[in-house]
Amino acid sequence: METHTFFLYLLAILLTARLMAELAVRLKSPSVIGELLAGVVLGPSILGWLEPNEVLKLLAEIGIILLLFEVGLETDVKKLVSTGKKSFVVALGGFFIPFVLGFGLSYTFFNLSLLVSLFIGGTLTATSIGITIRVLSDLKRHQSREGQIVLGAAVLDDILGVVLLALLYEFSIGGGVSLANTSKVLLFVAAFFVLAPLAAKLMAIIINRYDTHSEIPGLIPSMIVSLVLFFAWLAHAVGAPELLGGFAAGLALSRRFFLPLGISIRTDENFAHRIEEQMRPIIHLFTPIFFVMVGLSLNLHQIDWTSPFIWSFSLLFFVVAIIGKFSGVLFIKESWKMRMIIGFAMVPRGEVGLIFAELGRVSGIFNNEIYAGIVIVIALTTIAPPLIMKWSYSKFGAPA
Amino acid sequence: METHTFFLYLLAILLTARLMAELAVRLKSPSVIGELLAGVVLGPSILGWLEPNEVLKLLAEIGIILLLFEVGLETDVKKLVSTGKKSFVVALGGFFIPFVLGFGLSYTFFNLSLLVSLFIGGTLTATSIGITIRVLSDLKRHQSREGQIVLGAAVLDDILGVVLLALLYEFSIGGGVSLANTSKVLLFVAAFFVLAPLAAKLMAIIINRYDTHSEIPGLIPSMIVSLVLFFAWLAHAVGAPELLGGFAAGLALSRRFFLPLGISIRTDENFAHRIEEQMRPIIHLFTPIFFVMVGLSLNLHQIDWTSPFIWSFSLLFFVVAIIGKFSGVLFIKESWKMRMIIGFAMVPRGEVGLIFAELGRVSGIFNNEIYAGIVIVIALTTIAPPLIMKWSYSKFGAPA
Repeated sequence: METHTFFLYLLAILLTARLMAELAVRLKSPSVIGELLAGVVLGPSILGWLEPNEVLKLLAEIGIILLLFEVGLETDVKKLVSTGKKSFVVALGGFFIPFVLGFGLSYTFFNLSLLVSLFIGGTLTATSIGITIRVLSDLKRHQSREGQIVLGAAVLDDILGVVLLALLYEFSIGGGVSLANTSKVLLFVAAFFVLAPLAAKLMAIIINRYDTHSEIPGLIPSMIVSLVLFFAWLAHAVGAPELLGGFAAGLALSRRFFLPLGISIRTDENFAHRIEEQMRPIIHLFTPIFFVMVGLSLNLHQIDWTSPFIWSFSLLFFVVAIIGKFSGVLFIKESWKMRMIIGFAMVPRGEVGLIFAELGRVSGIFNNEIYAGIVIVIALTTIAPPLIMKWSYSKFGAPA
Repeated sequence: METHTFFLYLLAILLTARLMAELAVRLKSPSVIGELLAGVVLGPSILGWLEPNEVLKLLAEIGIILLLFEVGLETDVKKLVSTGKKSFVVALGGFFIPFVLGFGLSYTFFNLSLLVSLFIGGTLTATSIGITIRVLSDLKRHQSREGQIVLGAAVLDDILGVVLLALLYEFSIGGGVSLANTSKVLLFVAAFFVLAPLAAKLMAIIINRYDTHSEIPGLIPSMIVSLVLFFAWLAHAVGAPELLGGFAAGLALSRRFFLPLGISIRTDENFAHRIEEQMRPIIHLFTPIFFVMVGLSLNLHQIDWTSPFIWSFSLLFFVVAIIGKFSGVLFIKESWKMRMIIGFAMVPRGEVGLIFAELGRVSGIFNNEIYAGIVIVIALTTIAPPLIMKWSYSKFGAPA
């Protein structure tokens, strides 16, 4: 790609994302909806000016990892641990029930093959951690108790999703399913989450020491971004989603990071402040690219809107996608208001669902009709819940 | 490229750039030397871990444009205009004399063909605005009078370079040389430099108005980067180098921007401060990528160090490259100390020279030996002057 063409693309993304986000806010919707729709408008669905390409994908990937880094920075580890059991229940319920329902209905009701049915179930298990978190943060509820539960559940869901994707992929290429591999991945991911924040904390201490000594400006942006990239890479290396590396790095650098066993590593308040201040412009620059890319990846143009199969398929699975995620909420003890909010927050499939769908399409498991139906389900689950959540907060207020 | 591989590349670039820049400063050298050498070490010249690729090139390009934006932000337009005549003389002399000497010696002394000789002359005309400005800013002299003269001359040199490159390219594909085209380009560029800062200023006023109203954070990073990208694209569209678009946008947003004819557009000091504060982390993140890329693009490994032709060729043209740039300085009335500094500051060929050399190589005009010789000349002119300038400032002090 020519440099100046790329500049025009990036410009179009940043500008349209901003304009539509401002518009969304004026229409009393979360700003992330504006950014998603900016992608839909610019992309093949409507104008066809932009297509997802390698460079934009990489920048978008940096965007979501930096967003998770920011979320980690603002997270109180103690609170996250205290709501951990509930997050676990919400994640597990919202993972297995959509999978079972999605698989079962595809296999029996639509008479699809075993593999296709498994992939449909898999797609429905996804939760878009990015959209979920952005909506809560747009509504200024990401530090609330429901925000903590959703965050924990979304992180767990992402880990489960990666494991399932690996399993389905192995199964689809005829490799069978290896439980040993699965447990290895889970073990690695667990080890990562225990060790990564410790390692990141130690690195941050070294960066802090240099920051006060260096004569060259710009140590924090380049070194903190390096740290985040390193943990994203490490997360990938142990088999976890890359964005969780960003989250782990953020947790470690948070003001509210504590170590188990009472080991005390003093958090330098001033350093934490400088990190937040200098990283925020970078984070705000990159994250919209991610959400626009999700919109760009939704090609609504290819869907045959006259096909009755697509209509019945997508409407049925849209309902399944909502019921499935809500079932996790039934098992926790919270007010109905709280359950409603948590349930809706878990519904968006977003980019995680698209990854499943895309793998299904590329490997020939999904034909065009099924892929189109799945894309509609993903689009609906991605766009509707933020609107409902915003409405519900303003109608019923925040849960106690 | 896989995302995690890209993360590792970017991480290696940011980390090595920082480490070597810190090392350079401890060894009393400008930090940019460390970043250039980081590229040489990581690249094909030494370790061979990284190669310039499309994504890194685009990020590097954003880096240099943002650096020029920062330079523009810090530039006093009045001062720049007041030293403009001297900049003009320095640029013109330092452009034509290396060209004539380079062409003449290649054609007569080395018996090279007309086209090859023209391209060698062309390569020697280049001035790396990025390296020149970074060295002065590393030495905290970019706002001095010599800094202003060099900045103006480097900008003019870049414009002349683009025109020459276009002419040589036309000539090389047998299109002859069109004076009408050349004047059109020069006219467009002149119009760009008059109109772009005005347009950018107006846009900045709109951004400022929104910034105080918007509920969504991050307006400044995304909108100012959009502005810079837009003017980079516009610069390209009128036939000027993209980085000059960044410079024009920076000038317009500078606290010291004034309009001719006494038209007053109030510069909101508070807004200027917020722009500087929020753009700086982004600039500091991207610019090292550019200098590392210049180092990566220097493949010293392919050079046959035993060839007597390469030795005589590169040493002769290294001398020509220095004398050529110094000749511009002879025509201005300044102290010898000032002339020395300005002369050395104009010597680095850097990435601009490499663009000429690469075009020569790709189009088959340069054979491997000549290309290798040119690369040595570019490497020497790029690495030596920053060291000499640093030494000269600390030995003789700043010129009056």
